[in-house]
Amino acid sequence: MSLLEKINSPKDFRSFNNVELRTLAEEVRERILSVVSETGGHLASSLGTVELTLALHYAYNTPSDKIVWDVGHQCYAHKILTGRNGEFPTIRQYGGLSGFPRTSESEYDVFDVGHASTSISVALGFVEANAILGKGDRVVAVIGDGSMTGGLAFEGLNNAGASHKDITVILNDNKMSISPNVGAMSSYLTKVISDPRYNKLKNDIWEFTGKMKNLGQSIRTVAARLEEGIKGALLPGRVFEDLGFRYFGPIDGHNLEEMITLFNNIQKNVKGPVLIHVVTKKGKGYTHAEENAPKFHGVGVFEKETGQCFAKTDAVSWSAVFGQTVTNLAAKDDKIVAITAAMPTGTGLDQFAAKYPTRYFDVGIAEGHAVTFSAGLAKAGLKPVLALYSTFLQRAYDNVIHDLALQNIKVIIGIDRGGLTPDDGPTHHGLFDMAFLRCVPNLTLLSPKDGDELQDMVYTAMNFIDGPVCIRYPRGNVPCGVQKNDYKKLPLVPETVLEGSRVLFIAYGEMVNSAVETAKILKDSGINPTVLNLRVLKPLNTSALLPILKAHSSVYTFETGAVTGGLSSSIMELMRDNSVSETKMVHAFGFSDSFVPHGDKESLLKECGLIPEKIAEKVKLTL
Amino acid sequence: MSLLEKINSPKDFRSFNNVELRTLAEEVRERILSVVSETGGHLASSLGTVELTLALHYAYNTPSDKIVWDVGHQCYAHKILTGRNGEFPTIRQYGGLSGFPRTSESEYDVFDVGHASTSISVALGFVEANAILGKGDRVVAVIGDGSMTGGLAFEGLNNAGASHKDITVILNDNKMSISPNVGAMSSYLTKVISDPRYNKLKNDIWEFTGKMKNLGQSIRTVAARLEEGIKGALLPGRVFEDLGFRYFGPIDGHNLEEMITLFNNIQKNVKGPVLIHVVTKKGKGYTHAEENAPKFHGVGVFEKETGQCFAKTDAVSWSAVFGQTVTNLAAKDDKIVAITAAMPTGTGLDQFAAKYPTRYFDVGIAEGHAVTFSAGLAKAGLKPVLALYSTFLQRAYDNVIHDLALQNIKVIIGIDRGGLTPDDGPTHHGLFDMAFLRCVPNLTLLSPKDGDELQDMVYTAMNFIDGPVCIRYPRGNVPCGVQKNDYKKLPLVPETVLEGSRVLFIAYGEMVNSAVETAKILKDSGINPTVLNLRVLKPLNTSALLPILKAHSSVYTFETGAVTGGLSSSIMELMRDNSVSETKMVHAFGFSDSFVPHGDKESLLKECGLIPEKIAEKVKLTL
Repeated sequence: MSLLEKINSPKDFRSFNNVELRTLAEEVRERILSVVSETGGHLASSLGTVELTLALHYAYNTPSDKIVWDVGHQCYAHKILTGRNGEFPTIRQYGGLSGFPRTSESEYDVFDVGHASTSISVALGFVEANAILGKGDRVVAVIGDGSMTGGLAFEGLNNAGASHKDITVILNDNKMSISPNVGAMSSYLTKVISDPRYNKLKNDIWEFTGKMKNLGQSIRTVAARLEEGIKGALLPGRVFEDLGFRYFGPIDGHNLEEMITLFNNIQKNVKGPVLIHVVTKKGKGYTHAEENAPKFHGVGVFEKETGQCFAKTDAVSWSAVFGQTVTNLAAKDDKIVAITAAMPTGTGLDQFAAKYPTRYFDVGIAEGHAVTFSAGLAKAGLKPVLALYSTFLQRAYDNVIHDLALQNIKVIIGIDRGGLTPDDGPTHHGLFDMAFLRCVPNLTLLSPKDGDELQDMVYTAMNFIDGPVCIRYPRGNVPCGVQKNDYKKLPLVPETVLEGSRVLFIAYGEMVNSAVETAKILKDSGINPTVLNLRVLKPLNTSALLPILKAHSSVYTFETGAVTGGLSSSIMELMRDNSVSETKMVHAFGFSDSFVPHGDKESLLKECGLIPEKIAEKVKLTL
Repeated sequence: MSLLEKINSPKDFRSFNNVELRTLAEEVRERILSVVSETGGHLASSLGTVELTLALHYAYNTPSDKIVWDVGHQCYAHKILTGRNGEFPTIRQYGGLSGFPRTSESEYDVFDVGHASTSISVALGFVEANAILGKGDRVVAVIGDGSMTGGLAFEGLNNAGASHKDITVILNDNKMSISPNVGAMSSYLTKVISDPRYNKLKNDIWEFTGKMKNLGQSIRTVAARLEEGIKGALLPGRVFEDLGFRYFGPIDGHNLEEMITLFNNIQKNVKGPVLIHVVTKKGKGYTHAEENAPKFHGVGVFEKETGQCFAKTDAVSWSAVFGQTVTNLAAKDDKIVAITAAMPTGTGLDQFAAKYPTRYFDVGIAEGHAVTFSAGLAKAGLKPVLALYSTFLQRAYDNVIHDLALQNIKVIIGIDRGGLTPDDGPTHHGLFDMAFLRCVPNLTLLSPKDGDELQDMVYTAMNFIDGPVCIRYPRGNVPCGVQKNDYKKLPLVPETVLEGSRVLFIAYGEMVNSAVETAKILKDSGINPTVLNLRVLKPLNTSALLPILKAHSSVYTFETGAVTGGLSSSIMELMRDNSVSETKMVHAFGFSDSFVPHGDKESLLKECGLIPEKIAEKVKLTL
């Protein structure tokens, strides 16, 4: 029987000796590897933090003491060690464990996470509350160096450092967020770890101090005065020291004994805010992941022995089409620049980066900066294209309003992962962008039905639309590949995909295909809907839409977003503003007013009533 | 004739000698003071940056070189010196100059601003664009120490520091944002400026270096190796040095000659990112403002000689009612805590701060952190109340979705300045919150018609509503003071304020009064609307609303927000979901799909067709 099989909670290994702990770590690592190779998931981050997770649960009295994971990509060992080893193979599957910490799953999960940079703020909340409630429990935030580039992390540090309270921030430094990390903070951390001058200097100081007794009095006075400053100032981590933290590190995040000793010492002997700089290797213990961490960050099913992914044919993703189009357009227009917030591969802009490195900017996990920086680029005469996931665009909302829309600045935003991001669940679904962008003046909102239309939309937005333009597309592959490589100006009018009568289906983006499928099913019942590919959600093309609306008696809208304030509302607003009374009520197919769980796309759509069969039933019922 | 009268652009004073420059500075200061005493405006920040503004326009070749002001509270001298002295008395008035930089006003205004912390990102955009376009123009961001607490500023620094490009950041350090500043960065800057050890140490280093030649060889080798490190490390500003900036300062922001010399030297001799730490005094040159900078941050009309404000009777503001209620409730419940993002006075929470300092948190300009931190406080067992302006809540949108709503965490958010913030204009109007919050599951959205109802709403939200609750109220004073100090549980149903027939007015928040006024006007035309005070925008009380909707044939909605996706849409969605066909079309009174300028409230409402007379006309037309 393995050690892991006996572990139901951290209590079960707090009596382990070092050898047992090391064995347990290896068993946990093997468990993660063998399960994720069969289910897919966030592998590399979790492999990198096995020892750190063990050391934390060993040294801290969880669940009374709180460990707040940032983002949660690294939580697999944590789940396995806190009573969820048996369920672990259900990870990210419909009805199974979430891929992120979830308070509903375990009392060891302190806070629901998924987006970067929240952990210090949350932990400080616990710390201040404990102070007020007279509780002595410890609170630890575990944050990656990638998440440290997010402004929210700095806001948290700035407040925690000034609090003088006992809060521990573990900086898990693996030189990566999802792709290799960027920014001045990252360079600084690298210098701290790798620059031999730092270590040389540290030794020199001690040597120098030792020789002081041989010096004359006047020099000795000066040197003594310098000493304290020198020690504090020349040792690594002074940025954090200056922000009110005691800095410890860098220490080896794969050395269990060293970490446990330090964690225990700090609990006993150190008051106030502490930052522990732990160096880990993303993908640790699995050569293929160590050598290609970005590939194994979020990975599908793969062969454990070879690291070979089971590729899903040669289908083309929406992201790749977007990235390829921008790259192609950039060949003929040297004012086009591309910006990503730490997602070069996810957004398909890696192609652009390879071809035009001087016109490409990866700003790190910093969506707000990405938008405002793009506004500056545009104002100075360039044509910026930015790609962000819908869920992360929520973090740049004010920047879109205040820095783009208000000045009507021409920036193209590719809204990737609009709609479901199935395996990742509610923190990653992009369901709100249609509602929260529709109310912002000056924006143009577009969504294509397929890859060819996406290409034409990017081309059209680039050349024929003023002001900020958002082009929304889903996760996954375009429905029928890319058929052409020449771009044409797309008329910004709805496209009639199927000509029918009485019943009108208005669909946006990927839902055009669902609307067509639904129409096919309804044919047997003698219902022949007109299917409209809306293309432009804002501004609605009133003159094109009004006659179509008036010519039909029932309208059904199809959208992969929150129905509240979304597409159907926009159609009703149009009808209200133009006193369209010929058409009866508008029926909405989209996501109702609740958060959608994780799972495979088919199951989630079924649960939400958004597969063609269910939609067709509903249409028949309401007609 | 004064020197100022001859200045039409910075060219006109670039030939001035030091004496003339100093005279000009005094004239600008006097001009600001005398105009603002008669118009009101952002006085203290602008008085503090007169010399800095002059020095910048003197040393840099504006408008080719770009000066990006952060927030823009400090831009009055800039406006006066760049051709707008004549128009300056129209500042913040309807049709007059904006209180903030506006690209539409002048080529010297590089970017429209109003929200904190955007300048470094924007400036970096210009810098990177100039590099690509082969332009050699200089770019300078001017940012206050208050704005430095915002995460976006850190994201900008982190990217600018890593860019190795020529970008100059002027840190305008006056120990204030709007109220005195908070956070670890602020403490650090204070230490840099005030700690005598820093200056002592600086001198010691030079002294020590001078004596090195008298030392023995072995010590000399060690000391030499230390020297470079010591100089860089012990001088102030090392946080910025570590983030990739050359740091200069602190220098006196009221010493024109010193600043001009430094600015010129840096342009000539320093490559790469530079941060210049300039120390200014908020309110400089006007004793009353120097002594009470928060009062004179944004001030109404006042008597120049005495600094006495012409108070507007003893009316009570919505903010004060909110703050007072929270403070009163906190007397009986020691789990209630209050959080503000650098707005203790503006949000009325200063009362709470005075009474319960250990249960009060000012997190600085850091709205995202404020929300996520509150989530942590709540999760740990407290009852947090947060007050934010609607326009600044846009900066914490993802935090509301991801850190509050998703986990249904009970935090009460007072949304202050919901609706128009007249003098400040489009960057400060709070018109989008209804649309962007309505689509988020689990939120409860409330708005009171008057002060008494606000009190009851806070009480009810605190004691009887689960999950996150947002209570929205406008800038300004409650319509008829506060009549009572006991709180009662408010039924979460619409209140019929006027009983009428056929025509239904559904009003939200302060618009209840406009609806009543409109109804009075319509009485003469034989129209007797029912006026409903909605109270709860989300979740709509279906069972209470349906019979009322069915009993009327026309519905008019009244809201002080963007109509797109707002109140009227929510009513139409309700009717759609419940197949209400008895009621005819819904008509919407609110803000149409464009940004609203600055000016007095009456003029703006008139322009937008939202005064009762205009609304009544429209109602008659549509009936």
